[in-house]
Amino acid sequence: MPRNAFYAQSGGVTAVINASAAGVIETARKYKEQIGKVYAGRNGILGALNEDLIDTSKESPAAIRALTWTPGGAFGSARYKLKGVEKGGHEYERLIEVFRAHDIGYFFYNGGNDSADTCLKISQISGKLGYPIVAVHVPKTVDNDLPITDTCPGFGSVAKYVATSMREAGLDVESMAKTSTKVFIMEVMGRHAGWITAATGLAQAQAGQAPHVLLFPEIAFDEEAFLAKVEENVKKYGYCAVGASEGLHDKDGRFLAESGLKDAFGHAQLGGVAPRLAELVRGKLNLKHHWAVADYLQRAARHIASKTDLEQSYAVGKAAVEFAVKGMNSVMPTIVRSSSKPYRWKIGVAKLSDVANVEKKMPRDYITADGFHITQKCRNYLEPLIAGEAFPPFEKGLPKYVRLKNAAVRKKTGAWTP
Amino acid sequence: MPRNAFYAQSGGVTAVINASAAGVIETARKYKEQIGKVYAGRNGILGALNEDLIDTSKESPAAIRALTWTPGGAFGSARYKLKGVEKGGHEYERLIEVFRAHDIGYFFYNGGNDSADTCLKISQISGKLGYPIVAVHVPKTVDNDLPITDTCPGFGSVAKYVATSMREAGLDVESMAKTSTKVFIMEVMGRHAGWITAATGLAQAQAGQAPHVLLFPEIAFDEEAFLAKVEENVKKYGYCAVGASEGLHDKDGRFLAESGLKDAFGHAQLGGVAPRLAELVRGKLNLKHHWAVADYLQRAARHIASKTDLEQSYAVGKAAVEFAVKGMNSVMPTIVRSSSKPYRWKIGVAKLSDVANVEKKMPRDYITADGFHITQKCRNYLEPLIAGEAFPPFEKGLPKYVRLKNAAVRKKTGAWTP
Repeated sequence: MPRNAFYAQSGGVTAVINASAAGVIETARKYKEQIGKVYAGRNGILGALNEDLIDTSKESPAAIRALTWTPGGAFGSARYKLKGVEKGGHEYERLIEVFRAHDIGYFFYNGGNDSADTCLKISQISGKLGYPIVAVHVPKTVDNDLPITDTCPGFGSVAKYVATSMREAGLDVESMAKTSTKVFIMEVMGRHAGWITAATGLAQAQAGQAPHVLLFPEIAFDEEAFLAKVEENVKKYGYCAVGASEGLHDKDGRFLAESGLKDAFGHAQLGGVAPRLAELVRGKLNLKHHWAVADYLQRAARHIASKTDLEQSYAVGKAAVEFAVKGMNSVMPTIVRSSSKPYRWKIGVAKLSDVANVEKKMPRDYITADGFHITQKCRNYLEPLIAGEAFPPFEKGLPKYVRLKNAAVRKKTGAWTP
Repeated sequence: MPRNAFYAQSGGVTAVINASAAGVIETARKYKEQIGKVYAGRNGILGALNEDLIDTSKESPAAIRALTWTPGGAFGSARYKLKGVEKGGHEYERLIEVFRAHDIGYFFYNGGNDSADTCLKISQISGKLGYPIVAVHVPKTVDNDLPITDTCPGFGSVAKYVATSMREAGLDVESMAKTSTKVFIMEVMGRHAGWITAATGLAQAQAGQAPHVLLFPEIAFDEEAFLAKVEENVKKYGYCAVGASEGLHDKDGRFLAESGLKDAFGHAQLGGVAPRLAELVRGKLNLKHHWAVADYLQRAARHIASKTDLEQSYAVGKAAVEFAVKGMNSVMPTIVRSSSKPYRWKIGVAKLSDVANVEKKMPRDYITADGFHITQKCRNYLEPLIAGEAFPPFEKGLPKYVRLKNAAVRKKTGAWTP
């Protein structure tokens, strides 16, 4: 008898997380003997805790296909960290209660480091509680900081967006620099890992072009060195374009732009590195500046998604289902690079115990000795990830994104209070 | 005997200003009997004042064609306002000196309100000094605030970018809102006129979708009404996306971005309407927020240019040359809309004396009664302007933009000091 599957999106969404959803759902529909329905959690794992399930079988094949070109999280995501199994584990017990009520035998969790950990715990508790379930993590994070996998689905598209934006804005600044803006600062995401900042560097095809300076979270911010570098570039090229990580901090670990807010995971909410750097440039160098904060624009920019990233996002969703029907539990599909030039990749597999809560930062040799740019080795790594275009369909001048019906599954358990 | 032409870019550049340059140069090349070479000013009008001319005849047809898909100002632009003719007019005399030295009989100035005024004055002084020159203004401004013309080349592409970005980021926020970000604020350009802010509103296909609130420079900012509106939307839809003009100001005309607010740490908020609004939302409503400042990204985003805008940008460059060879002096090609549905437009002509220094703001009936959104009438106006895609070629995952040789013309006059 086929058992049902549960799929949920977790944490910050991406331009292509829905492509992974499409990979899961379309593939599950092919394994009719093993998998019944795919239920999605409305607002991620909360949908399971609250028994607020979405019946994806009500969606047409065309609607599911349209997920491959629709950004954001089509079922709603959540920043919600389950309490540890050791701390009572009531939440995990509730999950099993809901899964049991709906005969869910497959758990697909689409997220980053935190959710890999959740996924691992689900597989652990199911054993303890005697409820068989196969838990597979579907990797996703614009931060590109998951271990083992060569890259993280979602990253390539942000990378393509920030590099394109920097190349374009760079041409703008260059043409204005003689009489106006001389320094341009673009702030990008990546709290602890500088992968997105590094990708900004791809905009530079030749020395002298934007960006001239990159500020990585891996390199402690040195105000004096930064200002000297900006001045040097303005002198040499007439202008200076800077790509800066939101997670930039000084040698004592103090974030440049801490807003004082924390998210559900206790992470500080950041915002505003660019205006702080701009103020420095104005105050100390007296140069006219402009600054941009791409924020959600960067991770939602499906219109300029990387085709490679899109294909990989779909592939990990598909592979997750294929692993699950083979009974492979507590694993995550990975991207394995077999060659950079020409770029060749295939799907591999990682144990969740090796993935959960491990963060992959930029290797030091991906950053130039002075700490302000990327090396050729880094370019070789990044370039294939932004290759190829995959424009969405347009209607009335704008991308035509799908909205699903998201029909609710009838509840079978009582109300739950945490 | 054919006389030479001078072309210069002025003020803030756009994603498609180079398409106007291509229109001028390609068309001029067809009128060999009337027009000799097209010299471009390096860094706009400064190129003429300093006799720093670029010989565009050294560029291949392919390079000129590539201008149609390259953002920024290919010859360099300038923010430089010539002193009035009445104040001595030395600068204008210098221009005529340089034009005389290079037998320049045509003056094409590609810019907004200020440059229309400059162009007008050139035609006036040439009469006074007995040096015949035909001066034609080529309209360009992302602000869309030139009078007479139905729209301004450059605007449609920014409009398409901001509407696309808001639609994408809106889907992102919507999927995060249950447990995380509830308010998203995107700041866009338009210091005095709210056209770009209005275009952001096109992202909303149905009530409840982003953006929920627009803040126009034409409507005095009312903190209480704004916060009430945000709260109302969060209650109703779970989240609220805001499009805000950089030129937002209160009823006393005080710009929000210069209001001297401080953040939680006592740091002065540094430029940026979006962070100020975000701070208000956090302080008064205690809602989690994210904010983006698109800045140069919006006006340089050639990768998502409007095909309509691109065609019109080229057309005004072409028309300017056609006007000039007919001897039409002191004029500007305009876009004339003959129908909205289906959209039909043609090139018209305006006298520079009717254009110079006049600013076209949003009509009140383009803004809803409550001041927070656009009306159907506004949509009917805007929609055709963002229609059609015109993606640039890509190479290694990034748009492939041209860099011209920009070969200098040999100087014939002595050095000039202002």
